This record gives sequence, C-alpha cells and structure tokens, in this order.
Amino acid sequence: MASKLTSLPNSLLPKNPNSHLLLPLKPNSSTATFANFATHNKPISIRCTAASTAPVSPIPATEDSEDRVFNFAAGPAILPANVLKKAQAELYNWRGSGMSVMEMSHRGKEFLSIIQKAEADLRALLNIPEDYAVLFLQGGATTQFAMIPLNLCKPDDPVDFVVTGSWGDKAFKESQKFCKPKVIWSGKSEKYTKIPSFDALEQSPDAKYLHICANETIHGVEFKDYPTPKNGILVADMSSNFCSKPVDVSKFGLIYAGAQKNVGPSGVTIVIIKKDLIGNAQETTPVMLDYKIHAENNSLYNTPPCFGIYMCGLVFEDLLAQGGLTEIERKNKKKAELLYSAIDKSNGFYRCPVEKSARSLMNVPFTLEKSDLEAEFIKEAAKEKLVQLKGHRSVGGMRASIYNAMPLAGVEKLVAFMKNFQARHA
Amino acid sequence: MASKLTSLPNSLLPKNPNSHLLLPLKPNSSTATFANFATHNKPISIRCTAASTAPVSPIPATEDSEDRVFNFAAGPAILPANVLKKAQAELYNWRGSGMSVMEMSHRGKEFLSIIQKAEADLRALLNIPEDYAVLFLQGGATTQFAMIPLNLCKPDDPVDFVVTGSWGDKAFKESQKFCKPKVIWSGKSEKYTKIPSFDALEQSPDAKYLHICANETIHGVEFKDYPTPKNGILVADMSSNFCSKPVDVSKFGLIYAGAQKNVGPSGVTIVIIKKDLIGNAQETTPVMLDYKIHAENNSLYNTPPCFGIYMCGLVFEDLLAQGGLTEIERKNKKKAELLYSAIDKSNGFYRCPVEKSARSLMNVPFTLEKSDLEAEFIKEAAKEKLVQLKGHRSVGGMRASIYNAMPLAGVEKLVAFMKNFQARHA
Repeated sequence: MASKLTSLPNSLLPKNPNSHLLLPLKPNSSTATFANFATHNKPISIRCTAASTAPVSPIPATEDSEDRVFNFAAGPAILPANVLKKAQAELYNWRGSGMSVMEMSHRGKEFLSIIQKAEADLRALLNIPEDYAVLFLQGGATTQFAMIPLNLCKPDDPVDFVVTGSWGDKAFKESQKFCKPKVIWSGKSEKYTKIPSFDALEQSPDAKYLHICANETIHGVEFKDYPTPKNGILVADMSSNFCSKPVDVSKFGLIYAGAQKNVGPSGVTIVIIKKDLIGNAQETTPVMLDYKIHAENNSLYNTPPCFGIYMCGLVFEDLLAQGGLTEIERKNKKKAELLYSAIDKSNGFYRCPVEKSARSLMNVPFTLEKSDLEAEFIKEAAKEKLVQLKGHRSVGGMRASIYNAMPLAGVEKLVAFMKNFQARHA
Repeated sequence: MASKLTSLPNSLLPKNPNSHLLLPLKPNSSTATFANFATHNKPISIRCTAASTAPVSPIPATEDSEDRVFNFAAGPAILPANVLKKAQAELYNWRGSGMSVMEMSHRGKEFLSIIQKAEADLRALLNIPEDYAVLFLQGGATTQFAMIPLNLCKPDDPVDFVVTGSWGDKAFKESQKFCKPKVIWSGKSEKYTKIPSFDALEQSPDAKYLHICANETIHGVEFKDYPTPKNGILVADMSSNFCSKPVDVSKFGLIYAGAQKNVGPSGVTIVIIKKDLIGNAQETTPVMLDYKIHAENNSLYNTPPCFGIYMCGLVFEDLLAQGGLTEIERKNKKKAELLYSAIDKSNGFYRCPVEKSARSLMNVPFTLEKSDLEAEFIKEAAKEKLVQLKGHRSVGGMRASIYNAMPLAGVEKLVAFMKNFQARHA
C-alpha cells in the first residue's frame, strides 16, 4: 500500500485527517446538483475522515466495468478500456505539458512526439516496409474512394473492382468520376455472402489497380487471402479489419482504413501507400486530396486531427503491449469461433448467411429463423448491456461487431444470452 | 456539504471509515509506479482514514491551475478549462451510457442528441437564420478552399478575392483549379497590415462570390465590418475568429471555420451555408466535397468526427452559459486592449505592424525593436509558463493568440512579463 501511495501526486494524498480530496467526477444527469457540477466544473471536495457521516446517495454504483456496456457497434466502436482510462487520466494535462493534447500546436514538440510514435508503432505492428509512406488523413474511407483514382489514374485509365459488399460498391461508384472502373466480379446477386475464386477473375490487362474491400462491415465478408493484380497494384479498404491480424503490406500498393473500427475514434483515416505511387495526381485534385502534399509534410500540411491521432497511438501502443498482431489475431479467432459456433449449433434458430470460408472475424451478421423475434432479441440483449446489435439498416437482422477491443467476456456473455433466448423462444 | 455529497455516485462515497476510493488519476512521467498505472490502468485505491500514515510523496503538487500553462498557440489552441474538465469526467462513460463518446455509433440516439444539441446551441449563439444549413465536416479550411468553388461555381465562373493575409491567398490559389478567381485587392505589398476601404474595391460584375478571410491568423488582421458583394454572395473564412463576437450571418452566403482555434479540437470544420446555394456542385466533385450530401444527411452521410463535434458542443454550451457572444466580445476586447496598449506604450520596444483599425482581437503579432532579443523573449516567457509565443515561421517575431478560452489572467501575466522583460533589456 505504501509503495502505491508514494506514486500519487501530493494533491491527491490525504495530508491530515481532515484533508479534502479533489476528485474528477462523472456527471449523472439524474441529479441536479451533480449536473450543475458538470456544467460549471466546481471541484467537489470530499471530506475523508473516519467520522464522516455523509449520507449514502441513492444513485447506483457507477464505477468501471459494472456500468460499461458491451458495445457491438460497427463503428465508431468499442475501444480498449485501458486506453480510454489513460486518455482520461491525461486529458487535462498531457504528461506534464500543462495542456491537453487537444490544445497543442500540431507543430510543437509535444505533438510531434505523439504523431511520430504513432507512426513508428504502426510500422512495427504491421512491419511496414521503408518504401511505404504512412499518412494520417481526414474524411474517412469515403474520401479515399475519390482520392485513390485522383492520385493513381488519369481520367481514362481502366481500374478493376472486386465487389464483395456495399463498401466496395460505393468505392466503385465514386471512382467513376475520376477513371474508368470495371466491376470484374460482384457478389450482389448472392447477397454478398462470398469471396470469389481468384483464378476465375478476368482482370483487365491495363488496369491501373485492382480494388478490394478486405472486410465488408455490413455483410461480414472478409478476404482471407488476396488476389494478385495482373497489371498495376492491389488497393484495399481495410477500414473494418485494420490491425486485426498480420498483413503482408508488400503485397499492396495502397491500404486505407478509417480508424473508427479497430484503432481509434472517427475522424482519422490511415493510408499506407508505396512511395513510388505518389506524385501523379490529376490536375484538378484538391490540394487536400493529393497524397504528395501529405507525404511531403509528414501529414502536417494543414492541421491534422490531433486528438484522434493521439488516440490511435495509444491503441497501437496497447496492441504492441498485447504481443502484436499475431496475438491479436489469435484472440480474434477465438472470439469469432465462439460466436459462429453458437450460431451454427443452434439448429437453425440463428443463421449466418455468409459462406464459412469468407466469414469475417470482425463483423458477424446473423438472423433469426423466426424473424419476428429479432426486435425482441435486440431489446432484451440491450437490457443485458449487450448493445448495438441491430444489423445495418440496408440488410436488417443482427450484427455483432467484435473488433480487437471487444473482450472475450463480451462474446461469452452474448453467446450465453443467445442460448438463453433460444431456450425461451425455440 | 451534505447536499453536495448526495449527488455523488455511491462508489465514490466513503461507506465506512476504512472505505477505499477509486480515483481516476493523472499520470506523472517522473514516477515509474505511476507511469505503470497509466499504461496498465490498474485502479489505485487510497485508504481514506483518519489514522492514515501514508508517506507524503516528494512529487510536487500537480493540480489544476498550478501546472497548466498559458498557451498562446494559434491553433490548435487553448480550450476552456471547465470544458476540458467536463470532457475528462465523462470520457470513460458518457452520462451513464456505458461508453465513451468515442465509442458511440454516429447513428445511435446518444450521439444524435450530442450533434443536435451542438447545432442548436451554435444556432442560438450566432442567431443563424432558418434558411441556413449548419454542417459539421472534416478537412479544415484548406478543404473548403476547393469545396466552395466546386459547389458554387462552374469552371469558367469569375470569383473575387480580397486578400488580407496568407490564408486568403491560399484560398485564392486553390480556387484557381475550379473557377476563374481574381484578386481585386491584396495587402501583400504592405506585408498584410491593412483592411481595404470597401468603396475602393473594384468588384467583377459577374463574380459568383466575394471571398474574404475575416481574420488572418498569421498576420493578425481582422475585418471589423464586411464588404457588400456587387453580385453574388459574401463568403468568409472565419476559422480564427469564429464565435469570438456576434456576426450577422444573413450578410453572408457561406461562413466556414476550422474548429481548432476558438470552438474545439482540430478535425472539425463548421460550414454555415444559405440553403439555396446547395445542390449545384460540379460533376467531378468528390461526394465528400458536395454540400448537398452533407446537408441532406445532417452531417451524417459518413462517420463524422464525433468526439470533436462533442467537444465543440461543450464549448458552445459554455459560451452560452457565459452570456453569449456579446459578452464574449466584451471579454475579448478587454484582453486585446490590454495587450495592444502594452505594445503601443512601450516606447517602441515592442511593435505591432498592423494598422490600428485592422488589429485582430484574436491574434496579436508583435516584434522587438531589438530583434536579436526575440529568441530570449520567447525562452524566458516559456519559463514563466507563457508558451507558444513564437510568430508564424513565415513572418517571424512573436504572436500571442488570445482566443475566447484565454483567460484575462493569461494576458495580464503576459503583459507583466513584457514590462519586466523591457525593464531588464531596454
């Protein structure tokens, strides 16, 4: 105990029996006094004495795991609890700098140390070769849908798309403004439940790139291996399985990912691009959509989304501390197997439409044989603090997104709930 | 005291003389044990008893104002301390939702309540008319430099620019890709120290819009009134004086602002646009650069920068609580007058190059008569916790950015330091 206490700042240590502790506290909207604190931020002092006769509040305990939910949202999504705790601890004053990360000049030494460490840790995680640039951008994958053809193509250049879900389809449609894309395979007629055989793909001989969405967030379809482009390079949207497993970056010309599924909050887009692909943007490319500008300025051409990059950095640090992506993949497989197994062994009560070989480790869509029970399922699950299980509005049913940060306990609780629900409704 | 305590969550209340409090704590990098906590997030329990004999740590007190700096950065910039405290308090579990704002689905009811309140509060602050849309976007003002002509012009349309500093010049140059802009007045030959007389402006008769940068962050030049476009509409970059004073929005067709100076962290761009200007984007406009898409989807076409929008919302709430923008302007004037007065009354020791009528309330550039002392000035100021006073790399000298969140005490301390420095070096 004593050794722990020596590590506390003076101001948090009881100096004498009547000392007051200043506590950062969580607001609770059901209490007027507390809401008042939250708005006006007057520190509340707690008298810490043996003789305290403070009345015990009727508000239920609200600490840590007890009041956290298991959040199965597809993105923005669950983040590691320890990362959030660390961000919370240093939000007001980052490591003695006297300011929040949100207040730092993006050109100051403090933020430079943050973005440089984030990049270095990401490079270590994915073993990114030296001849690839790592860019921290804004605008989400949807901005990349335009930025990629604007940078890699002239307006008449052919490009191939393998469309295995809604996001690949969106990328294809947006690229039509800036190049001549062709869908060489689409899973649409089979409701996006498959990955094609690569041998059967009829690639365009002059395609500048071959585009895939490595993991379709809505349909739960994931590439387990990658096609080799006949011409040009492979481009992959990895938004929803970024850093969920090891990836051989050298197989790709460009990898992009919105951070808000596996590695951070929304508002950060990460692009990993082979350096020799940079510098050929179309003339009417907005400066913010030119990779060259961002690469030359180490993602600091204009003010980047600093706090988001900082959060990504904390997540990268955490992934490395867990043992890197091989270990992360092992954990993710265990969680996914548990959930798919529960679905497959339910005698058809639950159904996953995706072909087994293409099932995503990240997004698990499923339906109920008795589809009229789905609303009840979602409602009851929420009562058990299993939230955001509703399937995407375009496909219905349920979807459990079980990203890196979803603990095994969350999946175990979901599976237990599913069995219980089935027992009551079968 | 009792009334305050009843508002605390049970878990933070001492239940008996030997109860333990779980405290969210701030890491201190100088202490190994504590750094360990920060990384691994093990809650530290403090025994709160009258008989505590815990040794007092040698770490200096690190609470609140004592270890905060006065941050004069131009952006990202200082944020209100109470807003940061509130964000910190609810970072791990937002108002009983069981999740951080960073983890929330952007389509869930929790985040919808956040973005809707942020918009409503901003509308109240600026008295934004009903026929204007408010959009929360990404990419900073630099993205707007392209987005505006892409949405308001055909490629051959003329546009007028009044260029009063570097940012207006950047906006002009980027627009050349998408329309036919013309600089009808530039302060460049006078090193951007003036605002022109509006009567003397020779506007193009067919200009689709007249563009100004309402406050030039680098040069400290601010419009106090606004020119009336002969044709078309007035478009203003208000990044660095947004919400610093009341503005008659109806005089403008479009106002845009990066949030990271006055109203939030970087990564959020706010656009206020007259609705009848929406819907005419050029054919090759990326979908993410089309105002129509964002307006039709209430800024939720793709995943927005949720946490940044939340932070802006907290700032808007705080500005309203302070009495709105009339009161904010009064405070800003007082701070600016104090600083400009100190410069003007220094007998030339300090100099502000900007013409008095055009001086910014937000960014105060100044030089030393003895320019070789400038590095020393900046270094000594930093020791006094007056940081980020170095002028922009393109102009040198010093710059004090005194946005809404800079307390009067910060300017008072800077002025006292300046007088002291002068006394020692005059």
